[in-house]
Amino acid sequence: MDEETLRIKLGVAIRTRRSELGFSQDSFADQIEMHRAYYSSIERGERNLTLSTMARVASGLKCALAELFKSARL
Amino acid sequence: MDEETLRIKLGVAIRTRRSELGFSQDSFADQIEMHRAYYSSIERGERNLTLSTMARVASGLKCALAELFKSARL
Repeated sequence: MDEETLRIKLGVAIRTRRSELGFSQDSFADQIEMHRAYYSSIERGERNLTLSTMARVASGLKCALAELFKSARL
Repeated sequence: MDEETLRIKLGVAIRTRRSELGFSQDSFADQIEMHRAYYSSIERGERNLTLSTMARVASGLKCALAELFKSARL
């Protein structure tokens, strides 16, 4: 799988989960203390996230990293 | 969970899986075209891996990222 596809699949999974929790993109970014524009670029699959950033997002989404990757089919 | 614990848990899961497959650390690093010293530092939990690097390791380990995170209990 190419890198762009990977990033997009993870971004979509994050966006889906965040929407399901009823958070707006901006309010969620504020909640996990991340720049709104940066967080938005994550959901668009533009970032090659590090483990620590993924963990910060997953923690905000109240789900395990394993669960997030499973929903992304990764 | 602090960042060091995260990295170590992932490193241990990678090491366990690689051992189960019967690869030495060096032969596995060669197989996924990664510097041996760098790969070794991943197993020791010294790297804040990016998504693309995780995917490269998981692919070599013939397992999904979700599976790897699940075995790391992350």
